Amino acid sequence: MTTRQSPATFTIADYELAAEERMSEDARSYIGGGAGGEITLRDNEAAWQRLALRPRSLGAPDGVDTRVQLLGLPRPHPILIAPTAFARLTHPDGEIGIARAAAATSTIMCLSTFASVNAAALADEVPGATRWFQLYVFSDRGVTRELVSAAAAHGYEALVVTVDRPVLGIRERELRAALREAEALGDDRPIDTSAVIDSHLRWSDIEQLAADSPLPLLIKGVLTAEDARLAAEHGAAGVIVSNHGGRQLDSVLAGADALPEVVDAVGDRLDVLVDGGIRRGTDVVKALALGARSVLIGRPPLWGLAVDGSTGARRVLEILLTELENALTLVGAPRTADLDRSFLTAAPWPAGAQ
Amino acid sequence: MTTRQSPATFTIADYELAAEERMSEDARSYIGGGAGGEITLRDNEAAWQRLALRPRSLGAPDGVDTRVQLLGLPRPHPILIAPTAFARLTHPDGEIGIARAAAATSTIMCLSTFASVNAAALADEVPGATRWFQLYVFSDRGVTRELVSAAAAHGYEALVVTVDRPVLGIRERELRAALREAEALGDDRPIDTSAVIDSHLRWSDIEQLAADSPLPLLIKGVLTAEDARLAAEHGAAGVIVSNHGGRQLDSVLAGADALPEVVDAVGDRLDVLVDGGIRRGTDVVKALALGARSVLIGRPPLWGLAVDGSTGARRVLEILLTELENALTLVGAPRTADLDRSFLTAAPWPAGAQ
Amino acid sequence: MTTRQSPATFTIADYELAAEERMSEDARSYIGGGAGGEITLRDNEAAWQRLALRPRSLGAPDGVDTRVQLLGLPRPHPILIAPTAFARLTHPDGEIGIARAAAATSTIMCLSTFASVNAAALADEVPGATRWFQLYVFSDRGVTRELVSAAAAHGYEALVVTVDRPVLGIRERELRAALREAEALGDDRPIDTSAVIDSHLRWSDIEQLAADSPLPLLIKGVLTAEDARLAAEHGAAGVIVSNHGGRQLDSVLAGADALPEVVDAVGDRLDVLVDGGIRRGTDVVKALALGARSVLIGRPPLWGLAVDGSTGARRVLEILLTELENALTLVGAPRTADLDRSFLTAAPWPAGAQ
Amino acid sequence: MTTRQSPATFTIADYELAAEERMSEDARSYIGGGAGGEITLRDNEAAWQRLALRPRSLGAPDGVDTRVQLLGLPRPHPILIAPTAFARLTHPDGEIGIARAAAATSTIMCLSTFASVNAAALADEVPGATRWFQLYVFSDRGVTRELVSAAAAHGYEALVVTVDRPVLGIRERELRAALREAEALGDDRPIDTSAVIDSHLRWSDIEQLAADSPLPLLIKGVLTAEDARLAAEHGAAGVIVSNHGGRQLDSVLAGADALPEVVDAVGDRLDVLVDGGIRRGTDVVKALALGARSVLIGRPPLWGLAVDGSTGARRVLEILLTELENALTLVGAPRTADLDRSFLTAAPWPAGAQ
Repeated sequence: MTTRQSPATFTIADYELAAEERMSEDARSYIGGGAGGEITLRDNEAAWQRLALRPRSLGAPDGVDTRVQLLGLPRPHPILIAPTAFARLTHPDGEIGIARAAAATSTIMCLSTFASVNAAALADEVPGATRWFQLYVFSDRGVTRELVSAAAAHGYEALVVTVDRPVLGIRERELRAALREAEALGDDRPIDTSAVIDSHLRWSDIEQLAADSPLPLLIKGVLTAEDARLAAEHGAAGVIVSNHGGRQLDSVLAGADALPEVVDAVGDRLDVLVDGGIRRGTDVVKALALGARSVLIGRPPLWGLAVDGSTGARRVLEILLTELENALTLVGAPRTADLDRSFLTAAPWPAGAQ
Repeated sequence: MTTRQSPATFTIADYELAAEERMSEDARSYIGGGAGGEITLRDNEAAWQRLALRPRSLGAPDGVDTRVQLLGLPRPHPILIAPTAFARLTHPDGEIGIARAAAATSTIMCLSTFASVNAAALADEVPGATRWFQLYVFSDRGVTRELVSAAAAHGYEALVVTVDRPVLGIRERELRAALREAEALGDDRPIDTSAVIDSHLRWSDIEQLAADSPLPLLIKGVLTAEDARLAAEHGAAGVIVSNHGGRQLDSVLAGADALPEVVDAVGDRLDVLVDGGIRRGTDVVKALALGARSVLIGRPPLWGLAVDGSTGARRVLEILLTELENALTLVGAPRTADLDRSFLTAAPWPAGAQ
Repeated sequence: MTTRQSPATFTIADYELAAEERMSEDARSYIGGGAGGEITLRDNEAAWQRLALRPRSLGAPDGVDTRVQLLGLPRPHPILIAPTAFARLTHPDGEIGIARAAAATSTIMCLSTFASVNAAALADEVPGATRWFQLYVFSDRGVTRELVSAAAAHGYEALVVTVDRPVLGIRERELRAALREAEALGDDRPIDTSAVIDSHLRWSDIEQLAADSPLPLLIKGVLTAEDARLAAEHGAAGVIVSNHGGRQLDSVLAGADALPEVVDAVGDRLDVLVDGGIRRGTDVVKALALGARSVLIGRPPLWGLAVDGSTGARRVLEILLTELENALTLVGAPRTADLDRSFLTAAPWPAGAQ
Repeated sequence: MTTRQSPATFTIADYELAAEERMSEDARSYIGGGAGGEITLRDNEAAWQRLALRPRSLGAPDGVDTRVQLLGLPRPHPILIAPTAFARLTHPDGEIGIARAAAATSTIMCLSTFASVNAAALADEVPGATRWFQLYVFSDRGVTRELVSAAAAHGYEALVVTVDRPVLGIRERELRAALREAEALGDDRPIDTSAVIDSHLRWSDIEQLAADSPLPLLIKGVLTAEDARLAAEHGAAGVIVSNHGGRQLDSVLAGADALPEVVDAVGDRLDVLVDGGIRRGTDVVKALALGARSVLIGRPPLWGLAVDGSTGARRVLEILLTELENALTLVGAPRTADLDRSFLTAAPWPAGAQ
């Protein structure tokens, strides 16, 4: 199958470029766009480049080990697939294809509430993938409970509760492409996401959810120490530092910049993860050195999917894992747990959103 | 009326672009230009982007409320229309059209001394608009008193006294377009603005004006704590942090940068407002978080006017109000008064005038 | 004479552009170029833009007064013409033309040792111009003494001794244009400047020169507090903070950046002047606010000369003086001596050499 | 031989440009490329530009002296040729040509383990060149010992042990050009460099090597104070601050930025050298002022070689030496040992990798 992969796709950036050539205008706008002036969207990638690495020579003579502890369990590496809606927009393989890529690379897949496929179907199709379930709390708590039960029943190992979407951010590319989420759903899930998500959620609701849930809860969408402490106080097992891929409120901090204060506030009590702009193995090393237990990537697997279906998604994960091993070796940290902030310094070079 | 609004005008920046295509060279130069090298003009917008937001999740479960207190009175939202001269340059609807847009959106309109229409005529035409009157103190104090009396008699609720125009800034775009204010006035108001404005004003004149005025005085054109304190000592009810849209002295600070020291100096005694470069709902949130009670926008309503007359001006206001509500919800501040500097941090990304 | 001045020359930058169109490749390279990678050359202008102004409203009700004290004498304004070699390269009016422009605007002209005309001839041709003489100390001290005597005899009021040219900087534009100074001199002054200038000068030579000189000495080419103190200790009446227009050592500080430490070191004992990158009235205001007594401009009069001979040089001076008065009024400093560092703050916007 | 040198090659940047026009795609990718996103590659040059010089006038009346002490021996100047593999990729003169250029300019040449010529052959061909030998420690310690013995036997005066290449960095330009090192070696040295280099090296191995070696050891690839101290503790005579030309781990600090902490940590015990991005005489002055004893240049001699063989390499060295003398004179440091950090300040202008 020589046509499957272009010879130019050595990096995730290569996949982004190739994907943009293949995706429809609608898919490109939906996946690529951010809120407002897209300052945060652009800065998500740039923020990692504002950190420089301080490598130690001869520091990993016994080779590297990418394993991490996550929610008390050993995992082979610190990369997860972030929940993203409607993967079938980019390729018919959709979430099933991504899950196969995840299974092939021992990557945890977080399935979105608004995936093109439901939790049960994905579990049936790709039982080998380790799965977490991303939950939007619905105004209808009965539906919410059903979603949680289904996830637990089908072997999902954690709930990722998104808290930064009381209303939809103003995403101009989508407006310009005249794309509405409801349309994107097509016939499969003819729902208006904003109509069903509870926009009046309180921390007490989170506490109730945690108490009722058979699965550990991670709170996704935390950008401040204040919110991280509230998450800890209301029963969360972890927090995901995230700005929703720059799609909700523009000009908030990138994950790389918000991560330190969250780790400092709750890193001794909760697992802290981060997403946003991770495109290189060195980005993963920096996130771990700042104190994250793992990272999530959202757009990269979709780019892989757009280029080559499940194979492309897997290739994206393989590239990132290869880069991670290389970076760990060269930075001289034999085990991920050896990384700390002494491996980092503020980059003296300018790098930014614009 | 399908031709009225192009489908591309989702943002104020869209209106700016569309307006520049429609305006005459003279209008474009007069409205768009700034003083000197236009460092301050460019930085007015950029300065807001040097502030990052620190949002709180689940922070506004009961929805948002845009109301503010201004000069002791409740107002439905914190956006005002800044005084700008000669609106008819851009569209025959002129100030009347802007006032109608203001009335439709419960926005306070500040009428300029050098408007294309006088205070009485505007009040008669659009009685539903809440109105403030911008006053240049004339060398002829008799004329000045008449202007004040007319404003008070026709229901204007405050006087905005501009103090940063002892002489006209050197505006190169206007020089290049060979536009002189006197010409712009055409037959309606054949006066030379520089000839009538008192270039020798002292703070004691302001004190006299405040003592004589039946209306509260806001001093517009303050950029330092020193001036803000002088305004407070000489009878002002409020100050407007402003660099005159970058049209007077180049390389002074943008409103976003001068605002904090003014709030710190007099924020407990006076209402502090700010103008300059407000183009997004997030800019308004940032201004309020820094301590401003409200913001003024000058060029955006003119761009709306240029594109579609009064309807365009109204649409510009509606866009900004919609963005403001979205930003307040997503930043997690239920009431505008809940915003404080803990919602802000210096942006780690580079953003600037050049 | 409608052809004399293009309608586009409202600013010094306009003259620069127009001059570059008219000058020969050799003249353009000689006048426009700097040393090495031209970091310092570019930064000379940019550095002034890294300072923001803090204006006071209503601060100059009695109008402005541009007078300064320089070497103990009152001067009508703080702008001088810096010494530059071979003005005839750009226009046959040469130094005589510049001197006439200086006389017409009450500007002090510093004649270069390597001017296209000698000190006596210029004094004879333009007796109305206030004149200083720029001196390179020659290895032949007899010639040096003759130069000083001639300057004193012909009414030059001060000596500007250049100390930053022990060897010529490596100016790549000149190398590329295959221009050699000796060639530029043509038949008038067939000397090799590097051959005659003493490259082994010591501070003790300066002290001797000061003791012997009938005229006060200003040391030009000082960029550090250390050198400024040495100048004070060895008999100088003033120092000129200068990097030789970016033509000697690349990557040294711009005048705007070196000025504060020099003022702090010797400002109470010596007159401190500054050159480099002054292109706007606001630049002059910033220099004075930092503590300079006056500023010198080198390239701008040459650009004026190139465009329109003496008339162009005069026009350049008039533009700068008009901008200066406007800036002083708008910044609210009635007299130049009222300016201090409270009128400045570090610019929050990015502006730089690249 | 008028065709030998284009009139445009006045600077090292000129040679870079000219070389890129002449080299094959493979050579260009191999020589020009860096690891990952090439942040570090670009920043190597930019970092020197973030330092500004503080010159002293009249500071070198007796002229300059470029001599330095290196490993206890006097050397005529502080510039060395860094080890680079496979010079014949760029020109048939290869390492022999570079050595001839080194001999002609009294420059120390560091021969790479993976040079196109071995240590003995180079010594035979160019006995006049002062030579150091760059050593990769091979898994086969017998071969390693042979390499050391050969170097010592053939008059190499020091061993430069590279410690930042346990695995090869991910160099995307090379991947894209489908260049593999083994191919580049052609028939001469059909080895896979990664297969032979010991990727499990420990500091105890370095200590053993130092103990066994008849030559002093310099550790190349140190970027932190921590590593520098380890080098000192394990028998090194010097360290070379280096990021391997930006070819190993991307987003590590440039030499200019890592140098100060290394000098502070071990500068009183070891000779500290630096490489990376040195392109100007002012860069050399800055390195010395920061505390480096000498600098190494890697790509510049290869560019010279590509343009004009050995003559081009020599010309590159001559340009840099001429610039160095000029910079030392103009900065006012008569002897290199007079340079210290008082000659530097952080550049106020922006300059960076992007």
